[in-house]
Amino acid sequence: MPAFKQSTVIGVIGAGAMGAGIAQVAAQAGYQVKLYDNREGVAQIAIDSMAKQLAKLVERKKFTAEQVQQTLARLEVADSLNDLAEAGLVVEAIVENIDVKKAIFDTLESVCSADCILASNTSSISITRLAAGMKHPERMVGMHFFNPAPIMKLVEVVSGLATDLKVAICLYETALSWGKKPVYAASTPGFIVNRVARPFYAESFRLRQEQVADCATLDALLKGAGGFRMGAFELTDMIGHDVNYAVTCSVFDAYYGDFRFQPSLIQKDLVDAGFLGRKTGQGFYCYQEGAEKPEAQIVSVSLSTDVSSIKCEVSEDVGHLAGLVERLSQAGVQVTQVSGLAKGYLKVGRALLALTDGRMACERAKDERLSELVLVDLALDYQSATHIALSRSAATSEGAFNDVVQCLDLLGIKVSEVVDSPALVVMRTVAMLANEAADAVLQGVATAEGVDTAMCFGVNYPKGPLAWADSIGVADVETVLHNLQQSYGEDRYRPSLLMRRIAMLEGSFHVK
Amino acid sequence: MPAFKQSTVIGVIGAGAMGAGIAQVAAQAGYQVKLYDNREGVAQIAIDSMAKQLAKLVERKKFTAEQVQQTLARLEVADSLNDLAEAGLVVEAIVENIDVKKAIFDTLESVCSADCILASNTSSISITRLAAGMKHPERMVGMHFFNPAPIMKLVEVVSGLATDLKVAICLYETALSWGKKPVYAASTPGFIVNRVARPFYAESFRLRQEQVADCATLDALLKGAGGFRMGAFELTDMIGHDVNYAVTCSVFDAYYGDFRFQPSLIQKDLVDAGFLGRKTGQGFYCYQEGAEKPEAQIVSVSLSTDVSSIKCEVSEDVGHLAGLVERLSQAGVQVTQVSGLAKGYLKVGRALLALTDGRMACERAKDERLSELVLVDLALDYQSATHIALSRSAATSEGAFNDVVQCLDLLGIKVSEVVDSPALVVMRTVAMLANEAADAVLQGVATAEGVDTAMCFGVNYPKGPLAWADSIGVADVETVLHNLQQSYGEDRYRPSLLMRRIAMLEGSFHVK
Amino acid sequence: MPAFKQSTVIGVIGAGAMGAGIAQVAAQAGYQVKLYDNREGVAQIAIDSMAKQLAKLVERKKFTAEQVQQTLARLEVADSLNDLAEAGLVVEAIVENIDVKKAIFDTLESVCSADCILASNTSSISITRLAAGMKHPERMVGMHFFNPAPIMKLVEVVSGLATDLKVAICLYETALSWGKKPVYAASTPGFIVNRVARPFYAESFRLRQEQVADCATLDALLKGAGGFRMGAFELTDMIGHDVNYAVTCSVFDAYYGDFRFQPSLIQKDLVDAGFLGRKTGQGFYCYQEGAEKPEAQIVSVSLSTDVSSIKCEVSEDVGHLAGLVERLSQAGVQVTQVSGLAKGYLKVGRALLALTDGRMACERAKDERLSELVLVDLALDYQSATHIALSRSAATSEGAFNDVVQCLDLLGIKVSEVVDSPALVVMRTVAMLANEAADAVLQGVATAEGVDTAMCFGVNYPKGPLAWADSIGVADVETVLHNLQQSYGEDRYRPSLLMRRIAMLEGSFHVK
Repeated sequence: MPAFKQSTVIGVIGAGAMGAGIAQVAAQAGYQVKLYDNREGVAQIAIDSMAKQLAKLVERKKFTAEQVQQTLARLEVADSLNDLAEAGLVVEAIVENIDVKKAIFDTLESVCSADCILASNTSSISITRLAAGMKHPERMVGMHFFNPAPIMKLVEVVSGLATDLKVAICLYETALSWGKKPVYAASTPGFIVNRVARPFYAESFRLRQEQVADCATLDALLKGAGGFRMGAFELTDMIGHDVNYAVTCSVFDAYYGDFRFQPSLIQKDLVDAGFLGRKTGQGFYCYQEGAEKPEAQIVSVSLSTDVSSIKCEVSEDVGHLAGLVERLSQAGVQVTQVSGLAKGYLKVGRALLALTDGRMACERAKDERLSELVLVDLALDYQSATHIALSRSAATSEGAFNDVVQCLDLLGIKVSEVVDSPALVVMRTVAMLANEAADAVLQGVATAEGVDTAMCFGVNYPKGPLAWADSIGVADVETVLHNLQQSYGEDRYRPSLLMRRIAMLEGSFHVK
Repeated sequence: MPAFKQSTVIGVIGAGAMGAGIAQVAAQAGYQVKLYDNREGVAQIAIDSMAKQLAKLVERKKFTAEQVQQTLARLEVADSLNDLAEAGLVVEAIVENIDVKKAIFDTLESVCSADCILASNTSSISITRLAAGMKHPERMVGMHFFNPAPIMKLVEVVSGLATDLKVAICLYETALSWGKKPVYAASTPGFIVNRVARPFYAESFRLRQEQVADCATLDALLKGAGGFRMGAFELTDMIGHDVNYAVTCSVFDAYYGDFRFQPSLIQKDLVDAGFLGRKTGQGFYCYQEGAEKPEAQIVSVSLSTDVSSIKCEVSEDVGHLAGLVERLSQAGVQVTQVSGLAKGYLKVGRALLALTDGRMACERAKDERLSELVLVDLALDYQSATHIALSRSAATSEGAFNDVVQCLDLLGIKVSEVVDSPALVVMRTVAMLANEAADAVLQGVATAEGVDTAMCFGVNYPKGPLAWADSIGVADVETVLHNLQQSYGEDRYRPSLLMRRIAMLEGSFHVK
Repeated sequence: MPAFKQSTVIGVIGAGAMGAGIAQVAAQAGYQVKLYDNREGVAQIAIDSMAKQLAKLVERKKFTAEQVQQTLARLEVADSLNDLAEAGLVVEAIVENIDVKKAIFDTLESVCSADCILASNTSSISITRLAAGMKHPERMVGMHFFNPAPIMKLVEVVSGLATDLKVAICLYETALSWGKKPVYAASTPGFIVNRVARPFYAESFRLRQEQVADCATLDALLKGAGGFRMGAFELTDMIGHDVNYAVTCSVFDAYYGDFRFQPSLIQKDLVDAGFLGRKTGQGFYCYQEGAEKPEAQIVSVSLSTDVSSIKCEVSEDVGHLAGLVERLSQAGVQVTQVSGLAKGYLKVGRALLALTDGRMACERAKDERLSELVLVDLALDYQSATHIALSRSAATSEGAFNDVVQCLDLLGIKVSEVVDSPALVVMRTVAMLANEAADAVLQGVATAEGVDTAMCFGVNYPKGPLAWADSIGVADVETVLHNLQQSYGEDRYRPSLLMRRIAMLEGSFHVK
């Protein structure tokens, strides 16, 4: 079933930010749009406001005046639901209340033609439940845009239990023709993005709660090493803790208390205090006038050692740290390959450096009888990372640790030392994101490609979690998760069966 | 305390299906029964309807006309609760609402004599709670029949915290004299059957959710290999998903979110959709007129190899697969005992065949460096099984796999290949049933004999779960559970402490 | 910020047991107290009652008449909240209802000066939530006394998210000057005591549920070996099961279903039955007139062997059993150090005796191929213990077991044999208390010193759980927890990450 033709009338219900944005997207793509809002005059106000916004974009040469005029010409106010009788597709984008939505779809079934596709922009309500009791549940489908709709590329095309595959395909193709990145998803709690993104917040909150580092440091590491646009604390301060906490609770309840989705007491505390983030002037950070933003804790470089004297010996296979070794080499550090080092280990001055495998440094040092062990966190790209976390066993000397810090300083990489804790910061976050993504794939919620696309275009991740796991090596990610679970003894950190199966077979999520 | 004499008046409250059935059971056993229903005329209608049913059974020579006449003569309508003043036992079988039930028992305490036993047929309400506040809580007891009461043999005799042991014994003996199979149970959520049966549904739902096989295949395997009368999907379609899901949720909540009882999203989805099973024409299967029932996925036999050339070498101790080896031998397959094979392994043509121990084939192959590994599922009886599941590591060749399929085809056993997943289908289900049964025994809910009797006569299992574990070997079942827990990393699959203790001691649940 | 001066007016709101007690404490310490209760006349009645109590203490020479007179002179009834305008500190001790409390604090903010500290004696409501929306949330703080306030030393000084550190310090110093043992706590569910004490109840309930021993035996062991003042069954019978169960449920819910706080079905059953403990005449024990208190199950000493012939061989390092060995030696048992025994083992007659490491005896015997293994429970002090639990593998002979019993009898130590179960009774309880304490420290709820002080002075533990773990050896306690988790396969028994980290580093919770 191909995309709708441009001649198709697209009905949009609800002229709030999401509804107006969806209407704009469809109109810009050349479709006839009828925008309805049950609050008198609101649809017209939304269109007027859109006109002003688009005029500004003409000034900024994003569009020609003609393009904008044509877009606006395709937008029409519908005075009643009856005006949507000729629509080929109606997208509902009203308040997240199942009863109100069901009443709308009930009316639409009597107004629209039998082959009109009925879509909901809901982010949290089961499409299966929305379709229950409809005369034609097979044409009910989720079409979940992300805010702001004209800018964010992702559209989750969500099938309920009764949704006709052809309907989902048509919507997918239509979203494509609207310039979007659609992905198919089965209707399950949180769909893709609101489920798979949970560990991004949860792991930072947990690290904070366990006093591994402060908020500013954790945020800086997720950006400077992880390549994320924002850290979890500043991001949730922006989203609003009431909103983010409510989503977490909703997903947690819907998965029957699965601890992978357990809410955080430290976020609950913010909600209890009314510290909802930017909008109230206080969240994890203070946004009052004159408030200084706290800075990340950076290890100050002690120049006790002549950096040029620090030698770097590396094992024949340095694994995922190859980029770091190359960068050291490029910076003029003397790098020698030696045979005595186990896979993945670097000797940097007096320190033995390795990428975290999920164990605490004290545990790994004890298990493998290593001395002067320093663990380094995952970076999205060691060649371009500007910041990185290190941790060490209590037995590791200041001098050995400093040798690593000095070398990284030479590369222009700031170092934050975090409390010796399993899987540090970025590795822990990425491993848990990949794990959640794997479980979604295992359960048929989406394909590996779908999940990765969703996370890149729905929440701007620098890399899809499964592609990221592939690049680290699925077996290594599985080891990190296994060690996290051993460290905490919690179901929360269990590796997904799919992750285990692929690790066992030395495979990957994506075909290479 | 012996059973009530036949001269005892038995009061039955509620003339719905259960109440009428209980009244019939008692009357058939020679007891005087007074049937009360607060809806005017309903008790008489129930008796009339019973008379018609019994008349049919006379036609079918199940009873003589005289027997039926005598039974009916013992049934009397009670016009009010006061008519039950002379009853020695009153069995309540009304709506599952604690307040309504408590009001009835409150009245009965003022109407009946001090030594009248008050019993409730509740399936879900705590006997302890029902008895709370009664003048004589020691005479309150559960007498839980299964539907249809005249046919299903099981009666759970449920003691609350205050129930007098003599009261429970009297009820047990009375149930025996009514031709029933009574078992003692402590009042705990789900009593025996509604607790121990949960994994039967849960594991099939999980297998489906993880896309290990389709519903029809899983159902066929539980029947053809497991010896169950119905698979979980067709059974819950018959029970009704609203009902089955509600029981699961109630047990899950009562056990404070213990993941062994976690409801399934795929069943919740059916409830959300209104696809409640047979009664709505749609559940896991479609029951609309003309709908075709999907068939199990059977591996088609490739006759690439001359089956007579396939040799079978077996280890000295083939363990639980002895029945299969014997059947192969009987079918003319050349079976040789060799010394090079580890316990439990068979070489079937090119394949190395073993009973699942709970690990995925890929994991077991990797752990033990095995090639061409094919895993076979548990069968109730390999001599009579008509269908079986196999799985294999991705590294196992098509040819090796086909050798096993051809041999099983020779025996008349259909093969379904399922996705490489821990403990396949029947083994997983039986191990979890036995585990739940063991935990009930550990906590003093019932004896091993009691649990097995309950499952055989309450839900028609082909074998009591604990006797089944004994026949497989408790240590082997414990290993399966241990490996399931390792595979999933979930509390849900933890072996019961009693299972572990017996495994450690190489003992059994039943005295052998 | 120092303590308030004695000249400071202290307002106390609520003249129930807690409020009156707090008022008395402050007045006895020389402070001016204004006691307010919105029920007319109640504050005066409370003061009159206090006067009578104090008069009795004069008779018993606890105070001089003059001291009491001065104390009473400092107590004044406040007729309205307005009378508290000059207070420097107001402590609220009314009903545990957030709305009612918030209304009080709302009024106080308009009545009191801007630098008046507002404190709540709440045991269960988040200080962060109480402070939300206040004009000056920074002066809101928890001041949690324990019942009876004049006697129990502990005061939890609880900081919410917005509480000014100076405010907490002032309250801490003030509590000190009132003769109390204050500890700082972050506002988290249960604060310190109501969180860390949960395993004390939970483990006994679990042991009972799994039929390891009866209530009287478990209570006797916690006292005679553990040094606790009361066992969990008699203690909760005294507290009231409705109250204790409600606290557990509240903490369980607040920690989002963390299984460490899972309520017990056997306690729920008591609540359901209305068997609330002493106050209803029935709890775990019966308190009806004439009811006999059940006695602990003690192994009767079989004098089959001449005790003087029982020799005791010990390994060079008997670990935590050193006190027991010394006591044996003092009692005249012939103790020989031998080299063939592994660390921690004693040979007592035919038995091999060891302190539990969390494994069942059957498991440990199997793992390490030991015969005649008998496990002994932890005692607070083996030199003074009067009672101890033993368990054994089913393979251990009666004779070997009896040799240990006879030796312990010689020392005046009663023995209860408990079902072979992980970590016996006292060790299991103490390990779980220490684990919960460690997690509270990990999450910054309190310091190790704070937690230990809280448990010793809030619930009279014979030793702080973390000091206790230090004395056993943190690595050994971690091993016990690890083995408990392996035995049960439950998240509930996971060792805290802090416990693991310290164990790994061979460190301790307290600086030695």
